[in-house]
Amino acid sequence: MRRTPVGFVFVGAMLFFQGTGTWADGGTAASPAAFPFILPERKPDRPLGAAMERIYTKYEAPQPQDNELFSQFKYTELKGFDYHGHDGTVSRRDPSKVILHDGKYYVWYTHRQTPVPPQGAELCTDTVPSSDWDLAEVWYATSDDGFAWEEQGVALARPPRPDPGWRSVTTTDILVWKGRYYLYFQAFMEASGKRGDDCPVSVAWADSPDGPWTFSNRIVIPNGAEGEWDQYSIHDPYPLVHDGRIYLYYKSDFGENPHKVRMQGLAIADNPLGPFAKHPLNPVITSGHETSLFPFKEGVAALVYKDGPEHNTVQYAKDWVNFEIAAITELMPWAAAPYVPDAFTDTWDGRGITWGLAHFINYNDDWKTFHSVLVRFDCDLSRDLDDPEMKEQRVNHRPEVYYRQGLSARQRERMAGGNRQE
Amino acid sequence: MRRTPVGFVFVGAMLFFQGTGTWADGGTAASPAAFPFILPERKPDRPLGAAMERIYTKYEAPQPQDNELFSQFKYTELKGFDYHGHDGTVSRRDPSKVILHDGKYYVWYTHRQTPVPPQGAELCTDTVPSSDWDLAEVWYATSDDGFAWEEQGVALARPPRPDPGWRSVTTTDILVWKGRYYLYFQAFMEASGKRGDDCPVSVAWADSPDGPWTFSNRIVIPNGAEGEWDQYSIHDPYPLVHDGRIYLYYKSDFGENPHKVRMQGLAIADNPLGPFAKHPLNPVITSGHETSLFPFKEGVAALVYKDGPEHNTVQYAKDWVNFEIAAITELMPWAAAPYVPDAFTDTWDGRGITWGLAHFINYNDDWKTFHSVLVRFDCDLSRDLDDPEMKEQRVNHRPEVYYRQGLSARQRERMAGGNRQE
Repeated sequence: MRRTPVGFVFVGAMLFFQGTGTWADGGTAASPAAFPFILPERKPDRPLGAAMERIYTKYEAPQPQDNELFSQFKYTELKGFDYHGHDGTVSRRDPSKVILHDGKYYVWYTHRQTPVPPQGAELCTDTVPSSDWDLAEVWYATSDDGFAWEEQGVALARPPRPDPGWRSVTTTDILVWKGRYYLYFQAFMEASGKRGDDCPVSVAWADSPDGPWTFSNRIVIPNGAEGEWDQYSIHDPYPLVHDGRIYLYYKSDFGENPHKVRMQGLAIADNPLGPFAKHPLNPVITSGHETSLFPFKEGVAALVYKDGPEHNTVQYAKDWVNFEIAAITELMPWAAAPYVPDAFTDTWDGRGITWGLAHFINYNDDWKTFHSVLVRFDCDLSRDLDDPEMKEQRVNHRPEVYYRQGLSARQRERMAGGNRQE
Repeated sequence: MRRTPVGFVFVGAMLFFQGTGTWADGGTAASPAAFPFILPERKPDRPLGAAMERIYTKYEAPQPQDNELFSQFKYTELKGFDYHGHDGTVSRRDPSKVILHDGKYYVWYTHRQTPVPPQGAELCTDTVPSSDWDLAEVWYATSDDGFAWEEQGVALARPPRPDPGWRSVTTTDILVWKGRYYLYFQAFMEASGKRGDDCPVSVAWADSPDGPWTFSNRIVIPNGAEGEWDQYSIHDPYPLVHDGRIYLYYKSDFGENPHKVRMQGLAIADNPLGPFAKHPLNPVITSGHETSLFPFKEGVAALVYKDGPEHNTVQYAKDWVNFEIAAITELMPWAAAPYVPDAFTDTWDGRGITWGLAHFINYNDDWKTFHSVLVRFDCDLSRDLDDPEMKEQRVNHRPEVYYRQGLSARQRERMAGGNRQE
């Protein structure tokens, strides 16, 4: 191999020209035998088009069923949670990662219990919520099997005004660090919706997952400076341990209509209370809504869903910063909060995940009783599990699922306009 | 810019090192200001992570709503087709591209009308179908608006044994070439399911879309030689006109369980009756199920769905051969057969598509009355349409859609096994 300053990129260019030149040059090269009937496991030594080249170089395996980072997702209703007849006055959403402690699974989540359902920013008061996560607290539950849960009650109540989170304490996630437990949370100091969904992140700690919890009463992930992408919101703090440090991923909403975007950044600290240094390459994930990651081999994998050009993907960053698409899937869990056995073990051999909790928002499909419910998801994104049922290549929906995505009145009007060329 | 044999690839390598080196080298470069609050329309001159680099280089625009090759899909029930009470004895599936002729839209499709629903390869006879597309004919329908259709009856009846298609004439597509009409079709000469779904492709022609049709009685796209990827099946012939020639894309099933794969190839001819030269880089699309393409700018775009590592994508090949992912979407139409106004105009300025027909298979969710129905889809994959409702970034499904993807009995048994680490 010829060594040049360009290194392997040069080889890539050669393959590119080799791969297309034979045809583009008018077929001057001898025509090879056709592609084989049995798909080669490794990249075959023959000219390949760009798409074929990609399945051998961009994914763990050329077929989804062999790709440890491809999975379908299965959903199961949880037992043990009461929603007050689903009238909108009780909501549970945005679960934390699940941890296992003394033989029990623990999960924390946003719990809203208000006299009325959310009324919007215009009508909200000190007791009437603006949004589903306004005037909320962090509650927790435990389970023996991950399906049936016992709600244990409040973990983080709203602190007194003007402490961070006095308006609402939401969207928490757990860190276990040197025997101590840390709950990072969105610390609202105004009702969501007043401008946007603005808040920084604070943290509380305890010596046991059952508490009691001590508020740090400080902002550990501050909003960015004016004009910076995360100037208004730091959402979905999601701590993992890597390379002896705390790697905390978070989401921010930025931009203005019609170009509001959601992207995800990384902040790193040596101490759970900070200071956290925001990564200079932020945002490191350009798509998705909530943050959902897990150690995988030496790197980190992310579930990327809902928003952006690369929604419905699983992405992977070997260096925990530069994320590549590792799989394209569908019907992914929202606010996915997996059970990550090696979240805090500082592993260089991440094993992956098989289940977790997520949420359904607007459970009733009715704005007047808006609330969310927790749900369990299962998958096979684990190197230690081989479940072919999770590796089926597609979801088969019933026709009514498609018909529900019908044309709007405005669209029908446009078509009735009679532009035959449309 | 320094000129080297590697050209722009060299520049790409520089950006790569620029994009990751500042952090990987321990932050030796001066820390830049954070990413801006307003997402730049063009790639900003600052260090970017791999994911951010990608949204500026791999897609038409950094955000889906500005990407002409991103769309959601809306579905509308068609009027005018009778399915005999949906008892499984009448099936319509695999529509052709839609064409406009004398002010009317035309579509051709696989029509099965048999005494009983499909019974499988073991039980099939000369009148009992093995599969939904066994013992079928090509029928056609016309419409003024694309929503209400008038079925015109048979276009291609099954020819006498042993002519190509004697067992079944299915999965047709239309070519208009020098004032004449050509229907390419799957020419079954044994019942589908005997070994696999094996057939070559034949063609019939007419001077009017209303026929009468003359069978060429020849195989125009033959199966590959033994051991080649397309040795058994040539499916979904899909002709377009490009560069003065006929570019016909097709699908083949190959490999063996559990690694059966579906990929798509290209065959090119100067004459509708052939000979067609298969492209040496076949398969050119590695994912998807049926073929669904349309000219776009100087290249061709493909709807890629159902199967493979890159399902749920829209792909684009500037050179009609080397396909790249242009968008990731969801709930795509199956057997999508768009109305492509410039399918046969030999355009170098393809405008895109806004609607077409597709099918739902197993309409009843019941194997005993298995049959398929045609459906209309709408989208905005057109450079001449700007419909924000089609550019919403995600489909919001109801919880029951997720719960329908439940754990199987086998999976529940595995979990009850009590592996706490799962």
